[in-house]
Amino acid sequence: MTGTDPSAASAADLREQDVERARELLRAERRSIDNIDAALVHLLAERFSHTQRVGLLKAEHGLPPADPSREQEQIARLRELADEAGLDPTFAEAFLRFIVTEVIRHHERLRDEGAETV
Amino acid sequence: MTGTDPSAASAADLREQDVERARELLRAERRSIDNIDAALVHLLAERFSHTQRVGLLKAEHGLPPADPSREQEQIARLRELADEAGLDPTFAEAFLRFIVTEVIRHHERLRDEGAETV
Repeated sequence: MTGTDPSAASAADLREQDVERARELLRAERRSIDNIDAALVHLLAERFSHTQRVGLLKAEHGLPPADPSREQEQIARLRELADEAGLDPTFAEAFLRFIVTEVIRHHERLRDEGAETV
Repeated sequence: MTGTDPSAASAADLREQDVERARELLRAERRSIDNIDAALVHLLAERFSHTQRVGLLKAEHGLPPADPSREQEQIARLRELADEAGLDPTFAEAFLRFIVTEVIRHHERLRDEGAETV
């Protein structure tokens, strides 16, 4: 113990405890985030099974893959829901556009496959 | 009725019924999609409240905003979950990257705000 400062050692211990506590909180937050991500993936899978059916209906009846008026309604509604839920509405809009872009790609593929087989 | 072909009229009626039925199915699918989107927005709001706490913990303890090894683990796990759920794993990965980019932007803002006030 010669040459050491007990109060300094104690301050280092406290810092170590503090960091360990922060790591524990971080692990708990990450477990929650992982659970939410699993739920998001399953909801997205479900969403795509619905848009797949929409795509088939559109392809069967010769309707265009994109539907700008429907998209505008969806964006306005989601921005409002996001605002109420404390989520940045601009992010919610970007998120919907990101998904819709993927959906339209699927619909175009269905239409092109339809055109080749009909 | 003179000059009309009853069988042609009936075929047109059937087509009209068919289109009306398709429209009805489309409306039902869209109602489900709107419900799923509301759930997605609320889960995303919840996810951001967790990442907000992660950002504060990182800013308080001087940890870097991005964490590449954690992101790699999340991507591998989500690709596997997506595959099991019938969702394109490449889309699931793009989706996570899209969200993480937004989260890192938030974390950087927290770090910069911290640097200004501490």
